[in-house]
Amino acid sequence: MIKYPDVQGTKPDIPMAIQKVGVKGVLYPIIIRRGEREIHLYSTIDVFVDVPASRKGADLSRTIEAIENVTDQPAKVSGVEFLAEDIAEKVLSKFPYSTRSEVHLEADYFSERSPEDGKKHMVKYRIISRSVASKDSSVTSIGIIVHGINACPCAMETTRAMTGEEFPLEGDILAKIPSITHNQRNTVTVVIQTDRAHQLEIDDLIDIAEKPVNGPLVSVLKRRDEGELVYKAHKNPKFVEDIVREVAESIAISYPDFPEDYGVEITSESDESIHPHNAFAKVHSTFGELRKSLKS
Amino acid sequence: MIKYPDVQGTKPDIPMAIQKVGVKGVLYPIIIRRGEREIHLYSTIDVFVDVPASRKGADLSRTIEAIENVTDQPAKVSGVEFLAEDIAEKVLSKFPYSTRSEVHLEADYFSERSPEDGKKHMVKYRIISRSVASKDSSVTSIGIIVHGINACPCAMETTRAMTGEEFPLEGDILAKIPSITHNQRNTVTVVIQTDRAHQLEIDDLIDIAEKPVNGPLVSVLKRRDEGELVYKAHKNPKFVEDIVREVAESIAISYPDFPEDYGVEITSESDESIHPHNAFAKVHSTFGELRKSLKS
Amino acid sequence: MIKYPDVQGTKPDIPMAIQKVGVKGVLYPIIIRRGEREIHLYSTIDVFVDVPASRKGADLSRTIEAIENVTDQPAKVSGVEFLAEDIAEKVLSKFPYSTRSEVHLEADYFSERSPEDGKKHMVKYRIISRSVASKDSSVTSIGIIVHGINACPCAMETTRAMTGEEFPLEGDILAKIPSITHNQRNTVTVVIQTDRAHQLEIDDLIDIAEKPVNGPLVSVLKRRDEGELVYKAHKNPKFVEDIVREVAESIAISYPDFPEDYGVEITSESDESIHPHNAFAKVHSTFGELRKSLKS
Amino acid sequence: MIKYPDVQGTKPDIPMAIQKVGVKGVLYPIIIRRGEREIHLYSTIDVFVDVPASRKGADLSRTIEAIENVTDQPAKVSGVEFLAEDIAEKVLSKFPYSTRSEVHLEADYFSERSPEDGKKHMVKYRIISRSVASKDSSVTSIGIIVHGINACPCAMETTRAMTGEEFPLEGDILAKIPSITHNQRNTVTVVIQTDRAHQLEIDDLIDIAEKPVNGPLVSVLKRRDEGELVYKAHKNPKFVEDIVREVAESIAISYPDFPEDYGVEITSESDESIHPHNAFAKVHSTFGELRKSLKS
Repeated sequence: MIKYPDVQGTKPDIPMAIQKVGVKGVLYPIIIRRGEREIHLYSTIDVFVDVPASRKGADLSRTIEAIENVTDQPAKVSGVEFLAEDIAEKVLSKFPYSTRSEVHLEADYFSERSPEDGKKHMVKYRIISRSVASKDSSVTSIGIIVHGINACPCAMETTRAMTGEEFPLEGDILAKIPSITHNQRNTVTVVIQTDRAHQLEIDDLIDIAEKPVNGPLVSVLKRRDEGELVYKAHKNPKFVEDIVREVAESIAISYPDFPEDYGVEITSESDESIHPHNAFAKVHSTFGELRKSLKS
Repeated sequence: MIKYPDVQGTKPDIPMAIQKVGVKGVLYPIIIRRGEREIHLYSTIDVFVDVPASRKGADLSRTIEAIENVTDQPAKVSGVEFLAEDIAEKVLSKFPYSTRSEVHLEADYFSERSPEDGKKHMVKYRIISRSVASKDSSVTSIGIIVHGINACPCAMETTRAMTGEEFPLEGDILAKIPSITHNQRNTVTVVIQTDRAHQLEIDDLIDIAEKPVNGPLVSVLKRRDEGELVYKAHKNPKFVEDIVREVAESIAISYPDFPEDYGVEITSESDESIHPHNAFAKVHSTFGELRKSLKS
Repeated sequence: MIKYPDVQGTKPDIPMAIQKVGVKGVLYPIIIRRGEREIHLYSTIDVFVDVPASRKGADLSRTIEAIENVTDQPAKVSGVEFLAEDIAEKVLSKFPYSTRSEVHLEADYFSERSPEDGKKHMVKYRIISRSVASKDSSVTSIGIIVHGINACPCAMETTRAMTGEEFPLEGDILAKIPSITHNQRNTVTVVIQTDRAHQLEIDDLIDIAEKPVNGPLVSVLKRRDEGELVYKAHKNPKFVEDIVREVAESIAISYPDFPEDYGVEITSESDESIHPHNAFAKVHSTFGELRKSLKS
Repeated sequence: MIKYPDVQGTKPDIPMAIQKVGVKGVLYPIIIRRGEREIHLYSTIDVFVDVPASRKGADLSRTIEAIENVTDQPAKVSGVEFLAEDIAEKVLSKFPYSTRSEVHLEADYFSERSPEDGKKHMVKYRIISRSVASKDSSVTSIGIIVHGINACPCAMETTRAMTGEEFPLEGDILAKIPSITHNQRNTVTVVIQTDRAHQLEIDDLIDIAEKPVNGPLVSVLKRRDEGELVYKAHKNPKFVEDIVREVAESIAISYPDFPEDYGVEITSESDESIHPHNAFAKVHSTFGELRKSLKS
């Protein structure tokens, strides 16, 4: 059998180390078995390693083999939450010349949800799984992207004053009735550092992320259910700032044993219905910092 | 000078005519001069011709040359509204083996707009210019994509009834006060057939398309202006169906001399804040049909 | 129980019929059972009906209920190929005031493919299913989007001449050796009209669409396999024109019993590696026309 | 005049500081005057500030006012390279309760380029301008996104061996002739830390980024020019690793006076024509580190 040249293994013209070399946008279906339940993930995966100054290139096909190795035995995958870590560790074992590997995985995931109408709805979420592995340790995160609705508290007070000008009512009726305001789709993203000793369930994270934005948003709403969703959103109008703070508080409370220095990232982006741009807020912090804020 | 083989001009293995051959996504900056005013368009252009069964391929570089020929003399371009027609006719003159050419142009276009606050705002629109040219004639359209806000009339009546349950007020106060409902960004697209004898101004079309969705949406709104926009949207709640009908009526009235058989396409798409999907309506008709509806 | 107002059922201010009203971007997981095999589709669905001049709006939640009705019994779905038709017929039965319904469904679909390396690879395709139903009949199409690689035949002959200038070899060696040229990803889309008496398998359509662009493109290729793919693409360099003709010929031959007037649409789009724009070709024809071309 | 409630200025329910609050996706046309030349940028801008624990929300409309203040006097803008810094400093001056501001600006920019054919071509680039400002200092970066073509050196050696098997020629002819390989569009991004004492010209950065990927890619190429581009790409086949190293070397040489600790980020992403995924390399370093590598 002919041996083809190993071009990647030769010396580069410019002997410079590269921090990240890899593949982006690998499309892969992953099936995870949890007891009776099968979770089908349609995932998109990026895999990177570092390449030393002494080597022209990385053997990129090995990154894909690592993904295949990890995922071809659905029953053995250690959970959605550690998919990126499983792959990152496998990658590192296949690249003797690399000191770190990095995996970003995002996947569409349909979950059966029951909002207050009592019916079951299939809702699509986006799972985020990330890991950076070195010889000694891994830093791993799990996250979720959810959609909801938020109503603006500022415009609500302005319209309340304006309604009072047009309809001078007695008493404080207008102060009690929810006043009109702009509302819109809001995307909440939560990414939390985790490890095998400090685990969380992706479905719990969905609940935490969705609550402040009145989620889940579902495709079928009968009149009364639609009215109640609108009512709920207007009884609790929120800025993007309020939303990230509520999620942050909920995470600090829900995971009391997570290490102080573990990272937490929470964003809320509101597709402002009155503007052509979006409003955005981001908490970029640690469990320790969040706990400190809440005590003060 | 060496002559390189004309591979496109050879006979194809399978002697079959092809309806459209061309280039997609050509990025081109176009400057149009109108008196003192310069309009800068950042455009994306698709150009197609038909290729006969006798010929392997089309000389695609000529499509780009046609774009260059038409646009390199800004002062001579006959107007945004006929850019696609100008290019389509030039293309046809360069392809002796083709019987028709087709050009789709879309461009970002910033227009200075003054909503009710009296201030000036730069608002981005998307212009659409299309033309199909044959030896004898051209069919040309001009269009616009705008963004606005619509409030749902159905949820408004449901919440009004719900508010009445919670706050049993005397008289018909609740019937007068605008009730809360979901609202959201709405994208309106209008495309109209035109010709050099039946012209329209792109800025007029923007006005027509924006009015039913309370446009323009601008980036800066002070409290009172924000309140007024919300108030206006709730005083005139609209389904996507209402929006396309209002635009259709306005077009029929604004262009009374356009030929009966000239096409009109109007769509409204609402990014439903209470759902993960969008609501959509489309009128696909002719000036003749629109006029008939309005008389009945 | 309180009855909430039926706003959609009231008379519109402007009594104009609307050709399409509905929902866009409904996200839905669909499982289809074929014997032992389960096909998981992550689909995006648009559903439209027409609305008469006498009615303000359509009951949009019924469109989603129709999707649920059709898809909640996986074993009973009549096949990927007729999903849109099944939904369109169900929709029409739920809208007494509409005369037609229209469904566009696209879905990600992973198929296990074996290119020449003998290994199995999961490859992602995009399925297209469309149907327009009226009281008496349906017009239904099935399609597929695939990716491959094409090498340009024109630049190949130019570089062959240029190589001959630089390396004046004896004999016709250069004419035999595949010469360098630009190559790139190519996206082929095929959509064919079908009905329950004239069926096709989606996996056959994938084979037909992929063959002229040297597909499937897979994520792992060992050196020899990579070399062979490059060799194959250069031994058969193709314009987008060649690709659509080859697919058209193959379809005409593969489905000899499909009715003469049934539609066929084939496109090939090449992400030109030497340009910032794409090359594009489209056959928009009928089985009858394709058969006629091939006989001539 | 009625005063509307300042909801943003109230105390939040959860007294937690937020690291980033702002607007995303503001669309803005910016004109920069340099002597006789006018540069038109169609920009998309994100602006963020931090919000203290004591305050419910940020006054987001002030972010837009800051953009307007900076850009409405084209002649006074201090250059494309410092647009984000100018805006970030203006933002900070408008937010007394914030300690830092952050601006990300990206803009489409057409530049007139002359590749070797001697003709002039309009080529679209994407400019990146970023700045983080605090009371005392700013950290500012300027960057560019360009497109080119790269040919794979690994597959080239494999096909050379395969050609040798099929055509056993005497001597080393095959070693001299460029052998076929896969090639594809490659996107190179370069972002460099800068300040007013260490400036660079955006057009120089384009030259540096484009050179290793045989840019600029233009829309019109006559046969000989097309052949030469293909020839050039195959005479210098490159991995993404080679590309980022060449750009890094060129930057280190071109800007010898930039401070040691100033950051440099270079990425190359190759739309692999033989795969459904992309190859990627990233240098994430400082001028100091780059200089050290090159000396070794």
